[in-house]
Amino acid sequence: MRYCVIMCGGVGSRFWPFSREEKPKQFLDFFGTGRSLLQATFDRVLEVVPAERVLLVTNRRYAATIREQLPEVPEENILLEPARRNTAPCICWAAHHIIARDPEASIVTLPSDHLVLKERAFHEALRRGFEFVEGGDRLLTLGIKPTSPQTGYGYIQQGAAVEGEADFFKVKSFTEKPNIELAKVFLESGEFFWNAGMFLWKASAIIEAFRRHDPATLDVFAAGAGCYSTPAEMEFIDRVFPTAPSNSIDYAVMEKARNVYVETVDLGWSDVGSWKALHEVSPHDGNGNVTQNCRVLQHDCHNTLFAVSDPDRIVVASGLDGYIVADAGNALLICPASEEQRIRQVVNDVKERFGEDFI
Amino acid sequence: MRYCVIMCGGVGSRFWPFSREEKPKQFLDFFGTGRSLLQATFDRVLEVVPAERVLLVTNRRYAATIREQLPEVPEENILLEPARRNTAPCICWAAHHIIARDPEASIVTLPSDHLVLKERAFHEALRRGFEFVEGGDRLLTLGIKPTSPQTGYGYIQQGAAVEGEADFFKVKSFTEKPNIELAKVFLESGEFFWNAGMFLWKASAIIEAFRRHDPATLDVFAAGAGCYSTPAEMEFIDRVFPTAPSNSIDYAVMEKARNVYVETVDLGWSDVGSWKALHEVSPHDGNGNVTQNCRVLQHDCHNTLFAVSDPDRIVVASGLDGYIVADAGNALLICPASEEQRIRQVVNDVKERFGEDFI
Repeated sequence: MRYCVIMCGGVGSRFWPFSREEKPKQFLDFFGTGRSLLQATFDRVLEVVPAERVLLVTNRRYAATIREQLPEVPEENILLEPARRNTAPCICWAAHHIIARDPEASIVTLPSDHLVLKERAFHEALRRGFEFVEGGDRLLTLGIKPTSPQTGYGYIQQGAAVEGEADFFKVKSFTEKPNIELAKVFLESGEFFWNAGMFLWKASAIIEAFRRHDPATLDVFAAGAGCYSTPAEMEFIDRVFPTAPSNSIDYAVMEKARNVYVETVDLGWSDVGSWKALHEVSPHDGNGNVTQNCRVLQHDCHNTLFAVSDPDRIVVASGLDGYIVADAGNALLICPASEEQRIRQVVNDVKERFGEDFI
Repeated sequence: MRYCVIMCGGVGSRFWPFSREEKPKQFLDFFGTGRSLLQATFDRVLEVVPAERVLLVTNRRYAATIREQLPEVPEENILLEPARRNTAPCICWAAHHIIARDPEASIVTLPSDHLVLKERAFHEALRRGFEFVEGGDRLLTLGIKPTSPQTGYGYIQQGAAVEGEADFFKVKSFTEKPNIELAKVFLESGEFFWNAGMFLWKASAIIEAFRRHDPATLDVFAAGAGCYSTPAEMEFIDRVFPTAPSNSIDYAVMEKARNVYVETVDLGWSDVGSWKALHEVSPHDGNGNVTQNCRVLQHDCHNTLFAVSDPDRIVVASGLDGYIVADAGNALLICPASEEQRIRQVVNDVKERFGEDFI
């Protein structure tokens, strides 16, 4: 049977003051659709995987938020991590949990905080991906066709085409975030694709890959054989999870394994990783301004993003060029978009100066 | 006996979004002192005139706000205008009301929305002013020693000194708001003083001045002889007040009368007529920024005024030079200080676009 694992334990302060420690990005409704990024991710996958086989892996601190946002997810499908250990332990645990339910299970693993505009292409990509990985011992990653020379994403280089499977390729290499010159070369080459952190595999295949390439992590979770999907599972996880090495699935497995494939797709995708990225994927007025789910009376503003969490507030702005104006809860941020990488530092400064209530 | 009339019926949108139609500037606590400008004006005069002889003249729509802000003022001391007719009818009514209580009364008339930093100098100026006008049939205005070439104020030119009374002069002329070149000449001459709209006279003297120079207004109020300070007063006023010509006391009387004097004073005064004026009179940081009663974490900001009405909110700002950031209630204003004269238009636009709730 097909399963979905949505990873929704991420933290991140890049959308402060909208994102807060207790409510990071995946729980926010950036686009005013009425659904948070997590809820939209859940909704989107239901066409391919039924709700009873969608699992959420998150940090324990977000349990209440998850239950509030996705009451339709059965309690036993919420896997609460007692500690932050990046994606490799998360994926290894989920695979053990699922294989205990269904030894033949195949799994799509998805981030919870990305934007996907082309829903039908997404469904089609998942269906083709499932068929592909169910046919053998293959690890599949989705590679997004790049539309601009982004320096904020990792890239996947395609290798040999898979015979008889259009858009499926062996992976030649994974690369780190490039500089702008390299990103332009990547874009022009047509061989490089954005790494969106979406993976498909059989549960047995990813467990086997851990055995070969990251036995330390495998051992942690293999020790729990017999307890997965039983009442004993959480007690076991609470004890061993913190002992797992913190590592990403890319480093732990994908960059080492030989049976790694990429399915190249065009999903209208963005990781919405920053205010600037949000600005790029949102509808603009004629002067490049974005009003994110709020009412703005502007005059002589250009390339400025306005985001206001309170729907009853208005903004009147004049003479701003290239700014972010983000008003949420008890804080207002006004800064040049070019300085958005400072937001993390800003959040630390805010915490130090004004206290925990503001972060 | 000495009386005080505080005029507090003014409207004005220049401090939007802080000032609103239902709560104009005089009712706001701009400086976070815990007292509005009106309350501060009231507090300030009590040293010279006791509360039971302080009268408030305001528009009827502000009656509730007045009672809330100054519960210590007796109900019979609140004069509610049924219509807006500028300062001349207001002053003429107040004089008739007071002279009915006390034929020998002298009156100081004060605006309610100005800043006075030098309280003791203010008290001394009023005491000397009262003595001066009680000695004869004289109309006295306070002239503020200018400290910069302001183009936003009217000026009073001093004439001959009054013998034996330091700082008292005949008035040679009243002038309109000058351009910047003229304002510089005024400042250098030492003969010109800011017109702060503070006046002292005997009730009988100002009534006589109306008789001579603005008989149309005098006639409106003289017709009520016998009803002032009786239960019949308000009914009479409601009927006749709207028939009084709309005029300022300067045009109606001060610029025409021969017995007009100026007492030159240094009160640390500002009319706080705009965000820019507020910026000027408020304490600055080393980069010329003003944080008006709020918490701001700023980086690379210069000459910017931050005002936030909610004490539980913070602002994080970067890269602003010469801006006004004003956050109050359901609206946020961000605009260059140089465009503050557009605020009136902005408020109209806001009303048209978003409705009455925002103005």
